[in-house]
Formats: sequence, structure tokens, C-alpha cells
Amino acid sequence: MWDKCGVIGIVSTEDVATPIFYGLRALQHRGQESAGISILAEGGAVRTHKALGLVDQAFTSEDLARLSGRLGIGHVRYGTAGGRGVENAQPLSVESVVGTVALAHNGDVVNAPEHRERLKLKGWGFVSENDSEVVVRMLANELAQTHNPVKAIKDLMSKIRGAYCFLFIIGERLFAVRDPLAIKPLVLGEVDGSYIVASETTALDVLGAEYIRDVEPGEILELTPHGFESHSVANEGSTAHCFFEHVYFARSDSVLDGVLVHDARSRIGARLWEESPADVDIVVPVPDSGRAGAQGLAEAADLPYKEALIKNRYVHRTFIMPGQDTRELNVKLKLNPIKRFIEGRRVMLVDDSIVRGTTMRRIVHLLRDAGAKEVHVRITSPPIVSPCYLGIDMHTRDQLVAANHSVDEIRTMIDADSLAFVSLPGLVGALGFSQNSLCLGCVTGAYPVEIPGERLRSQTSLGQFKEAGKVEKKTV
Amino acid sequence: MWDKCGVIGIVSTEDVATPIFYGLRALQHRGQESAGISILAEGGAVRTHKALGLVDQAFTSEDLARLSGRLGIGHVRYGTAGGRGVENAQPLSVESVVGTVALAHNGDVVNAPEHRERLKLKGWGFVSENDSEVVVRMLANELAQTHNPVKAIKDLMSKIRGAYCFLFIIGERLFAVRDPLAIKPLVLGEVDGSYIVASETTALDVLGAEYIRDVEPGEILELTPHGFESHSVANEGSTAHCFFEHVYFARSDSVLDGVLVHDARSRIGARLWEESPADVDIVVPVPDSGRAGAQGLAEAADLPYKEALIKNRYVHRTFIMPGQDTRELNVKLKLNPIKRFIEGRRVMLVDDSIVRGTTMRRIVHLLRDAGAKEVHVRITSPPIVSPCYLGIDMHTRDQLVAANHSVDEIRTMIDADSLAFVSLPGLVGALGFSQNSLCLGCVTGAYPVEIPGERLRSQTSLGQFKEAGKVEKKTV
Amino acid sequence: MWDKCGVIGIVSTEDVATPIFYGLRALQHRGQESAGISILAEGGAVRTHKALGLVDQAFTSEDLARLSGRLGIGHVRYGTAGGRGVENAQPLSVESVVGTVALAHNGDVVNAPEHRERLKLKGWGFVSENDSEVVVRMLANELAQTHNPVKAIKDLMSKIRGAYCFLFIIGERLFAVRDPLAIKPLVLGEVDGSYIVASETTALDVLGAEYIRDVEPGEILELTPHGFESHSVANEGSTAHCFFEHVYFARSDSVLDGVLVHDARSRIGARLWEESPADVDIVVPVPDSGRAGAQGLAEAADLPYKEALIKNRYVHRTFIMPGQDTRELNVKLKLNPIKRFIEGRRVMLVDDSIVRGTTMRRIVHLLRDAGAKEVHVRITSPPIVSPCYLGIDMHTRDQLVAANHSVDEIRTMIDADSLAFVSLPGLVGALGFSQNSLCLGCVTGAYPVEIPGERLRSQTSLGQFKEAGKVEKKTV
Amino acid sequence: MWDKCGVIGIVSTEDVATPIFYGLRALQHRGQESAGISILAEGGAVRTHKALGLVDQAFTSEDLARLSGRLGIGHVRYGTAGGRGVENAQPLSVESVVGTVALAHNGDVVNAPEHRERLKLKGWGFVSENDSEVVVRMLANELAQTHNPVKAIKDLMSKIRGAYCFLFIIGERLFAVRDPLAIKPLVLGEVDGSYIVASETTALDVLGAEYIRDVEPGEILELTPHGFESHSVANEGSTAHCFFEHVYFARSDSVLDGVLVHDARSRIGARLWEESPADVDIVVPVPDSGRAGAQGLAEAADLPYKEALIKNRYVHRTFIMPGQDTRELNVKLKLNPIKRFIEGRRVMLVDDSIVRGTTMRRIVHLLRDAGAKEVHVRITSPPIVSPCYLGIDMHTRDQLVAANHSVDEIRTMIDADSLAFVSLPGLVGALGFSQNSLCLGCVTGAYPVEIPGERLRSQTSLGQFKEAGKVEKKTV
Repeated sequence: MWDKCGVIGIVSTEDVATPIFYGLRALQHRGQESAGISILAEGGAVRTHKALGLVDQAFTSEDLARLSGRLGIGHVRYGTAGGRGVENAQPLSVESVVGTVALAHNGDVVNAPEHRERLKLKGWGFVSENDSEVVVRMLANELAQTHNPVKAIKDLMSKIRGAYCFLFIIGERLFAVRDPLAIKPLVLGEVDGSYIVASETTALDVLGAEYIRDVEPGEILELTPHGFESHSVANEGSTAHCFFEHVYFARSDSVLDGVLVHDARSRIGARLWEESPADVDIVVPVPDSGRAGAQGLAEAADLPYKEALIKNRYVHRTFIMPGQDTRELNVKLKLNPIKRFIEGRRVMLVDDSIVRGTTMRRIVHLLRDAGAKEVHVRITSPPIVSPCYLGIDMHTRDQLVAANHSVDEIRTMIDADSLAFVSLPGLVGALGFSQNSLCLGCVTGAYPVEIPGERLRSQTSLGQFKEAGKVEKKTV
Repeated sequence: MWDKCGVIGIVSTEDVATPIFYGLRALQHRGQESAGISILAEGGAVRTHKALGLVDQAFTSEDLARLSGRLGIGHVRYGTAGGRGVENAQPLSVESVVGTVALAHNGDVVNAPEHRERLKLKGWGFVSENDSEVVVRMLANELAQTHNPVKAIKDLMSKIRGAYCFLFIIGERLFAVRDPLAIKPLVLGEVDGSYIVASETTALDVLGAEYIRDVEPGEILELTPHGFESHSVANEGSTAHCFFEHVYFARSDSVLDGVLVHDARSRIGARLWEESPADVDIVVPVPDSGRAGAQGLAEAADLPYKEALIKNRYVHRTFIMPGQDTRELNVKLKLNPIKRFIEGRRVMLVDDSIVRGTTMRRIVHLLRDAGAKEVHVRITSPPIVSPCYLGIDMHTRDQLVAANHSVDEIRTMIDADSLAFVSLPGLVGALGFSQNSLCLGCVTGAYPVEIPGERLRSQTSLGQFKEAGKVEKKTV
Repeated sequence: MWDKCGVIGIVSTEDVATPIFYGLRALQHRGQESAGISILAEGGAVRTHKALGLVDQAFTSEDLARLSGRLGIGHVRYGTAGGRGVENAQPLSVESVVGTVALAHNGDVVNAPEHRERLKLKGWGFVSENDSEVVVRMLANELAQTHNPVKAIKDLMSKIRGAYCFLFIIGERLFAVRDPLAIKPLVLGEVDGSYIVASETTALDVLGAEYIRDVEPGEILELTPHGFESHSVANEGSTAHCFFEHVYFARSDSVLDGVLVHDARSRIGARLWEESPADVDIVVPVPDSGRAGAQGLAEAADLPYKEALIKNRYVHRTFIMPGQDTRELNVKLKLNPIKRFIEGRRVMLVDDSIVRGTTMRRIVHLLRDAGAKEVHVRITSPPIVSPCYLGIDMHTRDQLVAANHSVDEIRTMIDADSLAFVSLPGLVGALGFSQNSLCLGCVTGAYPVEIPGERLRSQTSLGQFKEAGKVEKKTV
Repeated sequence: MWDKCGVIGIVSTEDVATPIFYGLRALQHRGQESAGISILAEGGAVRTHKALGLVDQAFTSEDLARLSGRLGIGHVRYGTAGGRGVENAQPLSVESVVGTVALAHNGDVVNAPEHRERLKLKGWGFVSENDSEVVVRMLANELAQTHNPVKAIKDLMSKIRGAYCFLFIIGERLFAVRDPLAIKPLVLGEVDGSYIVASETTALDVLGAEYIRDVEPGEILELTPHGFESHSVANEGSTAHCFFEHVYFARSDSVLDGVLVHDARSRIGARLWEESPADVDIVVPVPDSGRAGAQGLAEAADLPYKEALIKNRYVHRTFIMPGQDTRELNVKLKLNPIKRFIEGRRVMLVDDSIVRGTTMRRIVHLLRDAGAKEVHVRITSPPIVSPCYLGIDMHTRDQLVAANHSVDEIRTMIDADSLAFVSLPGLVGALGFSQNSLCLGCVTGAYPVEIPGERLRSQTSLGQFKEAGKVEKKTV
């Protein structure tokens, strides 16, 4: 349903393949489909190893040993576009006029399909269906004009729009690029003279690196063993950080745009209790996604926090299973309720989101079967009413239950005694950002970049959106 | 360091391979090395599929479809004896006078090596180094005398001693056997006319089965589609449930011999606080093993419980890595401290055990590097001073730091401000068993069954053991 | 249809795993299902590596490096009994009273099933369906009585009957055993102080070893780095060398019991022409099995020898394909006729045998489609009328076309203009052995060892058998 | 050393994946590194499956079943350029303005590197190092100009030079293209309304197809289910068929440009005897490459032809082994001499070529060790003195022994009693082509297409080349 990619780039005075490998493991939650590393070898050639599977599976120690070099980039992929298969793994390389260009990309360039069609007409045959090929070949084309990487990147950025973090190796140099609205996260760190850019601070932590700052909106950053140089593209004076990174996607120990994810989730939980309390005995998270929110809620409510649903860590992640039926069955096989905690109790169940509703319905039934007297569901995001076009894999409106049903209808579908989502103002307040510094497209239907057929954020105000903070209760 | 196997057996009026598969996934925490299923096919033949890896990896849906039949057994293996490799995977089958005998075994038969040597002298060539071959061929030999499965099993049990749960397919019938001291867990359940035995209740839960009771000490249980029949071997009037199943090994949502594992762990945590308090600001668990103990401790202490160490779920389990150095490195790579929770705080760190001490030292340093003012370590088991001979993979005394060092020496080694282990009386009381119903061999050096060179439990009393409850503090 | 195993054993003053590996490659034509090597390591342990596939696929150089030791045995398997799968790969080891016993076995012990049933009644559970387990455990049992390997082997030989070559590692010593009728081939050689036993001289050749002699009927040979010691079991004064090794199975450059296989095949071809000439223009072999016979025939006939059927070497061997239909299709896909050689010509087509007749029919049609005016088929073995119980995989009488049809009926079935098999006296004469020194069971129905329900060779004489030398022609 | 690729394309009224699979098996000798098939599916999409290994290994029956469609192309690869690995496997696809373009390519476009550099300057980033990407993207570019496949292919051909056969799927149509000098073979056939183009007639034979004709020099052929349409590019009035296809590369049952390969090889052997006879007793081929030549030579000489070197078919092909040492060892392991044929005899040894000379030296020694009195070597190609730039993998001049040594020096190096190569006029005469219809670059150093730094064929005449027909004898 939701997922993205993770990227890391390092320049150092020592070999970087192993640090990149460890950094990718710390970003593994951002993508489990494939992993890859490109290294600038002695003499200027770029060597790449990429394979399907987890980072641990994709690389042997021999693979790492072969990737000798002091500048490199790495990628873990979930796959928002293009089919599965190693041919879609990144980094992606092209031979250009200034030598090999390698790209590790996190995000979605929304007008890539238009460019693809336009360039086909100009005679560009594309060897893959991957949008990253469009990006990297557009860049190679700019490079042929200017021979200047920074100028070429600026020209590229002037032509594309969307959510993106690019790490480029261009002609023996390393560049990190963040889109002008800073939709996707990208941080900068340093340890012992190695400079690192990565999707999340967890990759800095595992390498013992100090966090320096976030890469800025629209910034082009060149990293060298001696430091970093910044080239800024005029940005739009506002940002559009993806709020869903905070609510679900990032690891809870990451610091995103200055905010510890765990804290943000806790504060949303507390806000949710203020907005939508209920007479309950215990607070139970859906593991692992609802845990931080449930802790904040339980503290605010001064209620016992109970991990009453135990997750089987050896079963593959729910959303990877193909087909709806398997997905339902899987909930049962992954979660085991502890009866002693639940029996005869009124339970407040906390999770980060409801997409289709089928998983939540199954969990509510698990709790009822285990003897729960009442089940009150609280969700730490507003209802998802609109697709994400900017990097999260969240198909069409048809598949989003909240796009087509009221909160009370959803409550009935999931068979809960009550249901509440955090309100938009509640969410924004708890995250500590201003409304206009976030991308809230999927919960408002108004997007920070132009999407054909959708509204722009600038044309809307928060007040006009459906009120999510209201609790819908079962009528007795 | 510690680990065991998991077993499940089902008789039903429908195909059992898929339920056994799901049951094995719910027992996966008991062994990740190999998985196998044996099914009694139409016509009396036994078909087996086994392979290295997790249950999900070892079986495809085609494998399960081929295993058609209404009676079967399954096994996941960690491997206490014998090398790795699929030739050591179970179930293990022999062709006997009454047809195929298949065995899934959890435990250690301590006198199997003696039988092996004795039988070699009688001309028995053994095709593997696996002790289960000794067991299953001794049974085949008994069967040739009596042609009566129950009598053969009784004869077998009269010759062996140790910790064992056997699931046997013998001549189209299914038998479950638990050793006379009930050292290893084995439970009985039922759903829709299917009867199930399994190592833990988690396997019953995932199948929607009702827990009926534990298999009794020394019991031989025959399961049929119509119910079960019990044949008891005169037991010793006492039990010796492995306390380490409660402290570490079982899943926290299992009910072991009537006790919910999560509750037992919480109570030990609370007792630990009573025995060994300290002036601290927050309670932090080592995930996942210290979590329930830390929750109990934090509640008893009325202190904030903080999950300040975040585990990377995509990194392989620490103890599977070969070599000491990798083990140390791995702690760093698996655990990420959340600085904001730790900085400037006095931390009480809770885990289930200390074996070598190297991992704990590394975690203490992680916390200090993240700014902890003090680190007080609390352990929910007494010091491990003696090897386990009864199913847990815990090598020699040399490798056990507590066998050769005082608590204060260990405190110095792990660089903690204070260190305390739960006391033996405290542990026993918190578990809710009498001292003589538990196997405490590894923390007392006195064992419930005869082990050459070691003391017997009956010759000792708890009072004489090293006092573990004492807090050792750093002298300022 | 027909196939067996290959074995090799070496004692040396240097590591033997690599020479055994090369020897197995030179025996690869004897079995492609699995390959294995057991080596006596320092300290007396036996290490084994075995895997499915060709020798090249089963062993990496690391595998060989791990198998350090100066005494060892190797095996390639086709599989006459027991299912496929690595659990049936050899060598097979048992732990016995005198240490590890390892066995590499080529042949069939015809009364193994009786022993298996008898021993089950005595309480021996068998962990496989492989007859080699029966042999090796019977030997372990004898060893427990005598502790004397030679005596134990003699006792074993007194209880079993059949066609067998055993290579045993027993208590750090290497023994080679050939059955009293010397049905299967086994040769002895030497190079630079290494002593070698192997199924065929090709394994000696590849190692640069000198052929010393064949292992004798009923001989037990112990090999040491200093030479070899012979222990003979009283043999029956006659032999029963499998004639089919000469006709089809052995490699044409092997010397079997003193006879170069290529020469024997050529002489049969010449004899066949004398017995059954025809007015033809060219002689064409079915590659590769008919080549040597066709060369001898063409020379005798003074006719042009033309390799007019080209074999695709990249297609798997015909008889490995499951199912009759695939087998037919495969002939087409493996053989390509050269039209220019065939068109308008009368062809004499030579092959080594006809089992079902379907393959030959297809080849005859290939030739006719390519324009052959006439196709005269000549076969260098007599009609196969009876199953082989002694090591060749040649199922039941139902599957043998010659068991149930006259030569003329077969001629009609394969749509040939004429068909002739070599006569029994012709075959025996061409091979250069006396009739009573060969096993001719499959072409006479009279066997050299007792087979329940079949005649014994001693009760018959050649004269009474169906006259094979006669040519059956199409009536115009 | 020498090798190329194989291609096949089929249009039919039925599914073509399985026929293409069978056709690729019949072309397997042209490349064993990877195999692939692209099929035009319903709706116009192109589906491709490619993998490393033999055709049998690269495709399962499920893979073929998924490739449903009535028009497709297939490829087996040896790899003349670019590294190994599945990313270099073909067919190669690009998305173009007229839909997917897929290419299966056999040959070498000699100016592809120039185009690559030129296009890089124009901003074309190349995602692989494979020259086929240059070709297919140049075509996509032409298509964007014209939208007319035939015109686009003509424009492409006007820009490239070299040896090539292209099979293209372009916008739901199938095109076959042969370079203007017809350097590489490509034939056209038909069966039951299916039209087929393939590298050799063996692929037609296996499918039961009739050979129609060779694709003509410079011809663009469009295949449809109703027949074929020809578009000819003005060719150069001459051809340059690779003579080495006849001498070594093609399968002996192929008909190349109207000549049966087996016959051509026989005639060269006969010519070689006429040019360079010797007093010998037998003629022995190096299997399999020298067989047809040796047969022709033996017939011409009226000497016995003896297959005295037996090849182990289970050992991988010599030239695939990395490193010189292994290559030498491998000769020993692959070839076994039959002593009885050789001992005391004067042997004439026939092979197709000498590249480095090391293999031949080893074979001469094998024969001497087996007792040959004299060894006279005869080679059915002239000395290789110059690299091949047109599709055969024959590195640099340094590696070609004949580029730097006289025939007598080579004779000394290989330790032969005499050595002779066929003369250039002898070769050309035996093949039955005129000198100017062949590419003889590697034996003359004069090439039919412009190669920077090399002479053009048109500037030379045969007379001026080193006289190869001379026999160099050991001076006693």
C-alpha cells in the first residue's frame, strides 16, 4: 500500500562499500524488494552490484570486497513504478559524455511519463519502463550541452516536477539533490572525514556519524572528502514534507526535518485522545505501526498500555502478499491476541491508518473473539481520501475506503464500537509544522505540485476539508 | 546460545499439511535452521518434505499440496546436536516391522551417546550423528519385539533419560510423548474435530484451536480423529519445567504449564525492582527479550518505560553470526539508541540474561555514547553458572561469564553503574511454581536428571546457592 | 533404460579428493544423477560431500579443498533402486564399532529385499529405501562380531548374492570387493605410489595410471600406500561378465576384462554383416551407441560409413526424459539427418539394441523423410527378452518389445525394410569370451545367480535359444 | 577463442515460443552463455524471458507457457563484446515511438564504438556497454523520423558497417536483416504456414521446415503469416562469407550459403593430403572439430581413419575455462587416447585450427605417451595471423601464435614430426567459393570492411600471402 525507497551516498578517504551496506540495512524498512551499490573505482569506472532481496541477501562479503572505492551510492527499493525484477533495481548507470553517471532515486517524478512520450517522439528509445531511466538520460543529455554537472542538474530540475531525492555519481563526483518542496527526507552527516547523505538519520546513527542538517528544499549538494558545497535552486518559499513519513513510513528513531518520529507519533496519539475519548479499560496498539501513537494516547488518557496483540516476526509483511484473500488470512497468521489482557475489557485499538478497511475489520474480530467487551478504534492519520502521486504506492480512489464512505460507514464495516481519526488541525499541530509546510495530498485531495485532474494545495484551505476529529459511535 | 526445537502433530478428518505449516510458523521462534513435515498418505506410506531455512522458505504451496493426508507431524529445528545441513532436519523416518515410523523430537536424550556406543558394540551401524536416529531405531527395535506401539514406547522410555517431547507416527497412528519430568513444554488442543499437540499454545491460537491441557509428565498420548487416549508412565511425582522457557525462550503470548509467559516475565521484573532498586529516571528494555520484564519493573517502580533502543528487524539474529567479533559489531548494527530519551538520564536497562557479557557491555556503551548519565543493569534470570544438558545450546562453563566471575566482576566488565540479577527465591516465587517443580540446572548446577559429573537436584537445596539478588554498585 | 553406477577408490601419500574428482568425471557416463566423495581425514574421521547433478556441478574447488586426506572413495549414480534425491546419493556412511564405514556401491544385491524384511523383524529400522543401507549395516553388524574387516566382508559375502562392486572405507583402511561371478567391472591401477580401483580403465587413464589387472571374481582387495593385499573368497570357477557393458554401457576406450570395448563392438558389427548382409549403399550409425559397431560392419562389408545422423549434444539424454511421448519427441530434437548423404540411398542403420522399439521407429522415419530408399536395421545385441535383475535399469517384460514379439513383428513395428539382430553365438564369439563366462540373462532369460521365478544359467544351453541371427525382410 | 551467437525468428498462426525454444536448442552450439525469447503478445506488448545458461536451463515449460503469441524472436549468446551477465543477454527491447522494438543480433558492428562516442556527445546516455543498445536506439531514433520500419532500417544500415544479422520486432512486425556482405549466415524456411529465419539450417530441420533460401546480402526481409516481403539495400556486388563458419563454427549438418558443411570440411581434408602428404599408418581426428576433415583426408589418402582420441562429453568445453593452466590440464581430462590404435604407429593428426598452440602441443604429447612413433599434424585452415573484428572472439595478435612465428617454429613448439596448414588457394577451392566471396581477414590480414589500422581486402590479392601449404618437417 505505502512504501518508498531508501538512498545513501558516501565520500570518504577509505573504502565506502561496507559503510554503504550497513547504511542500507538501517534503511531497509524503506524497501525490501532489491538492493544495490555503485562505487567509483580507481581510474574513474563505476562498478555496480544489485540484486533482489534484502540487503543481507543481495550482498556477500565478496561482493563488497569487489566494490573497492571511496565514493559511492546505495539504494533499497520497494517499487512505486515499473514491475519487479532485478532490471528495475538501482543504482542505474548511463555512459555519458563526461563518463559514467549513476543514479539512486527516491521519489516520483510526476511528469516523467510526459517526458518519456515527448522524448520517444524525438527518437529516444527507452530500454526499461523505469522512470529513473528518463531522469538519468535527460541528465546525460544536459551534460552533453554543458559538460557542467551543476548546470546540467539545474536544467534537469527546471524540467521535472514531483517528489525526489537524487544521488548522482557524475564524472567522479557525488551530488545529492532534493526537490524544491523537500517532499522526501534527505539528511547530511559526517564521521571521521566521511560525508554522508541518506534518507533517514538511522543510517547516520549506525555509522556513528553526526547529523549536520537536512538537505534543503531545492538544494544541490556536492560532497567531497573535504566537506560539501551547496548550490541552491530558487525554491518556492514553502515546503511540502510528506506527513505520512512521520505517521507511518520512517523508523520511529529517525529525526525527520528536526522532529523525532517517535515523539511526533506520541503527540498525535495524545491529541487523538483529547479529540475522541471513550470509556475504555486498556489501550492496545496494532504492532508495529500503532505502537508510538498508542503509548502517547495511553499516557494522555492515564490508561494501561497493553501489547495484547503479538506479531509473528517470521511471517512476511502483510502487504507483500498478492490478492485480497491472502491478505486477510495473513492478519490472522501474523497477530495473536493475548486473551488474558483482553477478556471482558473495553479496548481502545490504535493504528496509523485505514486504507481498505479489511485488515482492521479482521483485527477487531480477533479482539472480539478473544473476549473484548468493546473495541474502540483510533487512527493517527486523517482518512485517506485521495491517491498519492508522489512516491507512496497507494493506487486508486476505488481502493481507498475513506474516499467513498463516511466515517460511520467505515465504523460499521470494521465492526467497531466507535471509530475516530485524528483531525487535520490536530495532526498538523501535533507534528509541529505549519499546514503549508506539509504535503497532505492524500488526506485533503489538494497537492503541492500540479497533478493533472487534481487540485493544487495553494487553491485550498484546511478549513474546507471533511472534519475527521469526530467520533462515530455504534448506536445501541 | 540458547535455543531449541518446535514440534506439532495433528489428526483430522481433513488434510493436515497446511494447518501443520501454519502451526510451524507460530513456532518459528523455536528454530530457524530447518523445517519439515511428515504426512501419513493414503495407503499407509509416510511422505516427508524437509528443507533448510524458515518455514516460509522450506515449503511452497506445491510442496504442501503433495503432502496429502489426515495425520501428520512437523518440526522446526535450531540444532542442539549434530551439524547443520538438511540431513539433520526432522521429521526422521525408519522402515520398521510395523511400517514407517516417523519422529519429530524436541529436547535432549542425555544418555543417547551411551546407547549409541552400546548399540555399536551390538553391531548397529548409525548412518547419522543425530541422536534422534538412536531414539527412532531403538523404538523400531522394541516394535519388533512387541508389535505394540504403546508398549514399545514405554520400553523405550524406561531406557532413556533426559528432556524430550516425541511426536511419533507409528503404523498409521499418532503418538505424543513427554518426558517424566515434563522438562519441555507440550500442549494439547482441539478445533472442529482436529486434535493437535504442539510445543506452545501459539500454534493452537493460530489454528483457532481450544487449549485442552498440557501433556502430563511421562504421558503417552494417542491422538485420533475421535479424541485422544492417555497411557501414563509412572512419573517421579515431581516435575522439572525448564525455567528458561519462561524467562526467554517461549513467545510472550504462550501459556506454559498454565502460566502466561508475559505475566511471568512482568512479575520477575517487579520482583527485581523490589530486590534491587536504584535512583533512576527511566526504564529501558533490551528489545525484544527484556521488554516484558522491563514493563513489570517500570510499573512496580512507577517509572517511565521507554523503548529507547530501536531494533533493526532486518538484521539476522545476533547469536546466529559466527565468531565473537561479528557478534559485537552486530549489536551496534541492530540496535539504535534514541538520544532524546537517554541524554542526561539515569537509565535502568533490563534484559533476560547475561551469558558472555560482551553483548551487554556493548549496549551499555551505546547508552553512554547517547548521553546516559548512569546505566543500571537488571537481569530477569539468576546468573548462569552451569551448562544446560537438556536441550538449550549453552556450551561449556568457560563461555559462561558468571561461572567464573562474581557479580561485581561482571559489573566491571560490562561497565555498568550497578548490576543485579533476580534472586533464585525471587525467580521461583514470581514464576509461581515450587522450587522442585522447575529445572534450574543452569543457575544452580544441580540437575533433575543424572548427568555424569554434575550434582542431582535432589541432593541440594536452594538455600545453599550463591545469593543473586544483591546489587553490586560502582564504587565512586 | 540401461544404466549403472561408477566407483573409484584411491590410497596415496598425497591428497586424493582431486584425483577422485577427475576419476569420477571419466566415469560420468555411468551415472549423471548424483556424485559423491568420502575421504578419510586426519584423525580417522570420514568426511563426505555429495550432491545431485554432474561431477562438475556437484563439486566446487572449495568442496574439494575441504576434503583433505590420503584415502578416499567416490561414486556417480544413475539409480537402479530407490527414488532420486540426494538422500540416495553415495558414498553412504555408518558409525560402527570400528569407526566410520563408508560404502560406494555399483550393482544390485538381488536378495537385499529379503534381508531387509528379515532384519526388520529383528528390529532393524531402516532410515532409507536404499539397498546399500542394508549392505553397510549388515557389514557393521558383522564388524561388531569380529572386529576384523576381512572376516566381516567374507561373512557379508556369504549372505548376499548378486552383481556388486563394493568400495569400503573401514576403520581407516580401503577395501575393494567384486562379486564371485565378476558381473560388474572393476580394475586396479597404480601411478606414483597411488593405488587405484575403478569401474573402468578410463579413470586410470585420466590419472596417468598404469592398469595392473582386473579385480578377480570374489576377490577382497585391500589397498595401502605400499601396494595391495588380496583375500579371495572361493569363487564358483566361472564368471558372468555382463555382456551389455561391452555392447553399450562402457566407454569405447575402456578395456573390460582384457578386451578393448571399441574392438569388441567393431567385431560384433563385422559378424552381424556376415550373418545378415543386404544390398545397401551406405552404413549409418545411430550416434553415439551404434558407432563402433557400424564401423566394423562397414569395414567388413567394404561399404561407405557415413555419420548421416547428427546429434545435438546440448539436449539431455533421451532416456532421462519422463513419459513416452517426450521420449519420442526427443529423438526428433536430438538427431538431425544429413539429407545429402541419405537421399536416394539404401541405408544400413546400426544400433546396439532395441528395447521398446519406439525410438528406432522414429529414427527409421527420420531417414525415410530425408529420402532414404530403403532402411535396413542391424542390431549389435541379440533381442532383449528378459529383465535384468543385476544392475541395469530395464524394468519389466511388458516393456521389452522382443519379449512379446517376433523379429518380423518388430521389423513391421519399426517400419524397416529388413531387421537383424546379431546371433547369440555370433555375439559370444565376437566378444572373445566363452558362453559360460558371460551373463546373458537379458537375452536368454537364464541367469547366473538365483532369481526367484527365473531359470538359472546352469540349467540351460545356448542352443535352445531363439535364433537371432536370422534376417527378417519386408515382403514386397 | 572463436564463437558467436545464434538467432531465430518465427511468425505463425499458432504460438511460437515452443518452436523458438526448439530452434534455439538446434543453435545451441553457437552460444552457451545465455538464452532469451521475445514474443509479441496479444495487444501489442512484447514479453521477454532471458537467463544465463543453456536453453534447457534458461527456460522452464512455465516460462514458455507465459510467452503466448504468434510472432517472436530468440537468441543464444556467446558474447563477443560486453561482460557476461544476464544484463547482456538478448533479445534487447526499447520503447519507441512506434511501440516496442526488440532485437536479436548476431555479429559485430565495427563502427558501433564510434557511433557510441558520437551519440554521447549528442547527449545520449547509454545504460549498457553492449553494442546492441547502440543499434536498437539508433533504430528507435530513425523510427521517430520516419515512422516507417523499412526506411528506418535502411537509414540505420547506411550508417553502420560490419558483420550482422538482425532480427527485429518493430510495431508488431518481424524483420530480418543481413549485412551487405552477408558475412554471417542467415537462412529462411517454412513449415505449415510458419515462416522462419535462423542462423543455420539445423534450426529449420528440427522444426521440420523446408529451407527456402538464404537471406541475401543487404536484404531486409519482412515475415508475415502469409509469406515474406523483400526490401533490398543496394549491395556491394560481392560477398564476404566468413570462411571460419565452414571450417569450425557451424554444425556439420548445416547447409551454409548452399554448401553442406560436412562436405566442405571433407574436401579441405582431401586437399590437405594432396598438398602435404606424409608416410603415416593412420589418420586420427581431434574430436569433434577435426572429424570431417580427417575423414576426407583419410579417404583421399586411402588410410585407416581411427577415432583414437575419445572425448569425455561431460567435461565443459576447453575454452570456457579461465586461465592458461586449467586449459592445458583440461585437454588431458577431456581426451583419452586408445593405446591399441596408436602404439607403434605413425599418426596423422587432423584439427581445424591452431590458435595459441598450447592445446595442440598437449595432444601431440598425449599421442606420444600412448606410444605413437610419429605425429604429423594437419590443419584444415590456414594459419591465423590476424584478429577477427567481425564476430569471432579472437583477441589480439599477441595471442595468435601464427602471427608471430613461422610454421616451422610452430612445429617445434607443438613437438610434431611435421606440420602443415591448408593453403589459401586450397581452402578457397575446397569451399567452392571464389576468393572474393569470402571473408578471409584472420588468415590474410585483409578485411572486407574498413577496420582502422588494417588493410582492406580490395587492396590485396591472394598471391601475396604467406604460403601455408608447405609442410614443415622435423629435421632428424
